[in-house]
Amino acid sequence: MKLATIKDGSRDGQLAVVARDLKTAQLADAIAPTMQALLDDWDFIAPQLYDLYDQLNAGKANRAFDFDSKKCMAPLPRAYQWADGSAYVNHVELVRKARNAEMPESFWHDPLMYQGGSDDFLGPNDDILLASQEWGIDFESEVAVITGDVAMGSSPAQAAEQIRLLMLVNDVSLRNLIPAELAKGFGFFQSKPASRFSPVAVTVDELAGAWQGGKVNLPLRSTWNGKLVGQPDCGVDMVFNFPQLIAHLVKTRNARAGTIVGSGTVSNKDPKKGYSCIAEIRSLEMIEHGAASTRFMQFGDTIKIEMLDGNGKSIFGAIEQTVKEADPA
Amino acid sequence: MKLATIKDGSRDGQLAVVARDLKTAQLADAIAPTMQALLDDWDFIAPQLYDLYDQLNAGKANRAFDFDSKKCMAPLPRAYQWADGSAYVNHVELVRKARNAEMPESFWHDPLMYQGGSDDFLGPNDDILLASQEWGIDFESEVAVITGDVAMGSSPAQAAEQIRLLMLVNDVSLRNLIPAELAKGFGFFQSKPASRFSPVAVTVDELAGAWQGGKVNLPLRSTWNGKLVGQPDCGVDMVFNFPQLIAHLVKTRNARAGTIVGSGTVSNKDPKKGYSCIAEIRSLEMIEHGAASTRFMQFGDTIKIEMLDGNGKSIFGAIEQTVKEADPA
Repeated sequence: MKLATIKDGSRDGQLAVVARDLKTAQLADAIAPTMQALLDDWDFIAPQLYDLYDQLNAGKANRAFDFDSKKCMAPLPRAYQWADGSAYVNHVELVRKARNAEMPESFWHDPLMYQGGSDDFLGPNDDILLASQEWGIDFESEVAVITGDVAMGSSPAQAAEQIRLLMLVNDVSLRNLIPAELAKGFGFFQSKPASRFSPVAVTVDELAGAWQGGKVNLPLRSTWNGKLVGQPDCGVDMVFNFPQLIAHLVKTRNARAGTIVGSGTVSNKDPKKGYSCIAEIRSLEMIEHGAASTRFMQFGDTIKIEMLDGNGKSIFGAIEQTVKEADPA
Repeated sequence: MKLATIKDGSRDGQLAVVARDLKTAQLADAIAPTMQALLDDWDFIAPQLYDLYDQLNAGKANRAFDFDSKKCMAPLPRAYQWADGSAYVNHVELVRKARNAEMPESFWHDPLMYQGGSDDFLGPNDDILLASQEWGIDFESEVAVITGDVAMGSSPAQAAEQIRLLMLVNDVSLRNLIPAELAKGFGFFQSKPASRFSPVAVTVDELAGAWQGGKVNLPLRSTWNGKLVGQPDCGVDMVFNFPQLIAHLVKTRNARAGTIVGSGTVSNKDPKKGYSCIAEIRSLEMIEHGAASTRFMQFGDTIKIEMLDGNGKSIFGAIEQTVKEADPA
């Protein structure tokens, strides 16, 4: 099924079921008020939502309304955990190569993962408000899963059973803040502003055969200022699948319901597949020409991130946003 | 006022008002169900809780019960953000010196801060369950604040107005996992298991004169296996105060209500004040004798963290925990 969170002025919005074709939706308020409420009690609530989803797809829902992604918050507008992996190691190797840094061999078998802020996620069409374009504004197109409760020490197989929903992510990064921040040794902080998510989250059965081996085997399309710049296949060159990423997360602690785990920037070794973040094309330019010629995002730039099924239909709806200058606090 | 969250089998527990002497409490269910509900709507709810607090302290509450920290969850059992600073730069310098690493001069004016996991905080008397004592189990005694909404770009003065509550923290660390993890460049992850908090959170007015300059000017007592090993003053050698730490956090994004910001391990330059984590005494031993002789925590070890007011009364109640071996998932 497909789910969204509709803006209503509250912090958590209202949970809605969205039709498979993304044309209509119905509030799920009689079943569960919010996405977190669903995740807290999935086994009891999800079957009721599946029933509503079937009615909606059959045109038999009694309070259906036209679905509009502009009225969506992030599916989980605030979460108790956001942990982002770097499963496409090719991307990591490329970026390091561009700055003449060797990538440790261990990166091929020990996942990179950072803990991100999760208190203020933004919706699919909300502006990307930032105070300075000197920070090196970049998009990062990713896939993420939302989990149920995962116990400390769970294996990848145990973790796989707790994958509840899939989403797309724009993990906005401030490239010019990263080197100094990582040099301090404590990881990303100011270089990672609020992340943004697709209009809808979907259960894995929505992907049918495209969900295989704990990966999404479909291209992720990134369109920057109206130009398609990347369409790498998310199932290709993903060195760690989602169950492995979750198992890495829970080595020393539990992960509780509503944990979001990201894939990291999707990247294929085949350069014809384009790029899912500007840092990658700039790295390629550095390696080939000794200097990067593609600029980072400027105020007014747009970014669209979408995934289509085998019939060319949007699965998650599109993240479609404009970068704008933030007003002072 | 003083607040706690009482275990009731639910994920968020029940909000309770606790008397100043920590002897009695009353559920706040008629006013707000949970700590997060309070934080989401502080201006409306807090005055009602202050009234209940006054009644409780006067012995006039109609449903008071004996307060027992063993029945407490963390005041905020799951939070949307946990960001931990390293405001006691002395501690950072010492640990680095022990491994012959120079500390950048910038650390004295640019705060170190890491994003921690916040989905599964543990209560003041919950066991510290871990799979291996080979990980180098350490306690870290800290002070933390809980904030309201803080807008992106807020100044320290603006941030100060959003400090709602104070707590004590045991930010458990796995020392032997840290070097390899930090070498990967993405900060702490598996080396930081779930953090644990004091039984009660208190408003700043509870500290009276001890809350000055955005700092808590009182000693923090750490008792390891029954021996008092540290009582550094939290107001001394704190290079960045809480408003400055929060302002650092919101440089590129908003912080939403319920954000927890930690001070980092409390540490004074005066060695007579002892230590708030084992890594610090081991660093001193390394510097003085070329080798560390104090071991990390073993299964069965206990740790107590507490802060007393000028009259020797506990302000927050005590974090008091035992390290135990976790069962396999």
